Amino acid sequence: MSDLPNAVHITEEGPREGFQIEKGPISTARKIALIDALSQTGLDRIQIVSFVNPKAVPGMADADDVVRGVTPKPGVAYTALWLNKKGFERAVEFSDRLTNTGTIQLSASEKFLLRNQNRTAAQQLAEQHAIVEGYKAAGVPVERGSIMAAFGCNFEGDIPVSRILEQIAQMHDLAAEHDIKIKWVSLADTMAWATPASIKRVVGAVRQKYPRLDLNLHLHDTRGMGIACAYAGLEMGVASYDAAVAGLGGCPFAAHKSAAGNVCTEDLVFMCEEMGLATGVDTERLIEVAMLAEDIVGHPLPGSVKGGGSLKLMRARIRAAKSA
Amino acid sequence: MSDLPNAVHITEEGPREGFQIEKGPISTARKIALIDALSQTGLDRIQIVSFVNPKAVPGMADADDVVRGVTPKPGVAYTALWLNKKGFERAVEFSDRLTNTGTIQLSASEKFLLRNQNRTAAQQLAEQHAIVEGYKAAGVPVERGSIMAAFGCNFEGDIPVSRILEQIAQMHDLAAEHDIKIKWVSLADTMAWATPASIKRVVGAVRQKYPRLDLNLHLHDTRGMGIACAYAGLEMGVASYDAAVAGLGGCPFAAHKSAAGNVCTEDLVFMCEEMGLATGVDTERLIEVAMLAEDIVGHPLPGSVKGGGSLKLMRARIRAAKSA
Repeated sequence: MSDLPNAVHITEEGPREGFQIEKGPISTARKIALIDALSQTGLDRIQIVSFVNPKAVPGMADADDVVRGVTPKPGVAYTALWLNKKGFERAVEFSDRLTNTGTIQLSASEKFLLRNQNRTAAQQLAEQHAIVEGYKAAGVPVERGSIMAAFGCNFEGDIPVSRILEQIAQMHDLAAEHDIKIKWVSLADTMAWATPASIKRVVGAVRQKYPRLDLNLHLHDTRGMGIACAYAGLEMGVASYDAAVAGLGGCPFAAHKSAAGNVCTEDLVFMCEEMGLATGVDTERLIEVAMLAEDIVGHPLPGSVKGGGSLKLMRARIRAAKSA
Repeated sequence: MSDLPNAVHITEEGPREGFQIEKGPISTARKIALIDALSQTGLDRIQIVSFVNPKAVPGMADADDVVRGVTPKPGVAYTALWLNKKGFERAVEFSDRLTNTGTIQLSASEKFLLRNQNRTAAQQLAEQHAIVEGYKAAGVPVERGSIMAAFGCNFEGDIPVSRILEQIAQMHDLAAEHDIKIKWVSLADTMAWATPASIKRVVGAVRQKYPRLDLNLHLHDTRGMGIACAYAGLEMGVASYDAAVAGLGGCPFAAHKSAAGNVCTEDLVFMCEEMGLATGVDTERLIEVAMLAEDIVGHPLPGSVKGGGSLKLMRARIRAAKSA
């Protein structure tokens, strides 16, 4: 009936998502405080900045200072996002503080590539060859592929499952040429088209063809399907998810139509832990960090469990009342 | 792998939930406007008021006027909630406008009963005998049982599955004594303890023992699990859900910790329709009503699809662009 994993790994992307999108300004000190608080929750991989043009993304103008300011916690990998060579070079300069890994990035929708990066699918693939060469030259491992718009696209519509299988085959071809190995592939629901049913359909097809490939789901909650899609992923054996504390990057106001937050970390942790799937994350501490995130951005954030409260605390209170 | 129903029936509870909880005041005319708009979406069962003490629930002081003011749409059942004999008598007075059906109401948690209604489980059961007599005397059919706190309780904690089976057996005993037949049972996650896993566990056990009994799920989204729980219910073959347009009755602000909205109707309709399960509801029209609901209450409401937009419209735009 289901193929639940025993343990679930969550990559926290809240700081990068949040600081990138929020109008702010948010002080560097508070950004660092949020990251340091996250590192005390049990989350062991946190994306903390993106190295992008500060003119385009003012919220990331202090990225260097944020990286320098974080108090590294042993066992926690701090990562950065980059979109081009210059950004990658900045990340490499921080190799002592950041865990830099390379990703082969394809898109299931060519129309999305054309709109967003002014590239055809063939150009994107060619570009990945050059990017992998750059990673290898810098000594950065490449073990991960990512497929954008894997479940649908605002410009192309529904995406056939065969397209996803083709893209993974292209990644394997590319890896073979460069003598690297793709250990896991992230399926990104970039524009929030996924439903639990399409998650099961796509993941099922990928697992059938590539049973040894590890999968990650990058889910957006724009249409309220995030947690349900994660549940569908869990039932299909997917053990790795991206998420953002408090749903940072999103906004509960209907007026902010463009805000498409990632699935909320503490809601996802709550579900996993209640289902008996270990995440290694302390739900109560994470809820406190979610409330801190809300305080830092200065407006309500979408997550639910931070308002509803966890059941662990509730159970503890009930036990205490019984023994009193 | 799953036992999805072909069609899904949704009972709309937004007007009653919303008008009961919102601080307001909301004019009677706007309440009626919302109900009339809902009746144009394809929803065919709408709970529009509760007959309760206006001193306790000021938002329901105009319940009679709301019932009188609605323009009945053929094929739509308008219902009311009542909590005692007096409320029931008020509903019966409106038999020409309201569809009145009786429910046997039990609770999986005795502690919840004691707290909320100052009754033991035995007293609650005895009370149901008297209530069923009253329904029969008034010619109101009783075909439904409802189990509160079916997935957990803030005062008792986790609820064993065996408790739910016992309660259904009690309902059948009671029905036999009064020569009525319980056709369906609603499992209410009154305090939002359910996860998709516990939905599957409880529904699975009930279906195994009572394969011919129709089930309904009444889900709250306090901890963000509503849609995921509904998906789990769908996979277990549950074809009937309660929901509230825009998530009326809830509030996205963390500060309103007590606000525990029902699962959002348009998000649920969106998921079902995208999965190919017919609801009979027009998603686009329902999104418009959700925005009307938000306008009427004067603050953001929790639903997501009203902000994210439906994919049907997106697909139509993509098709139009292709053929242009």
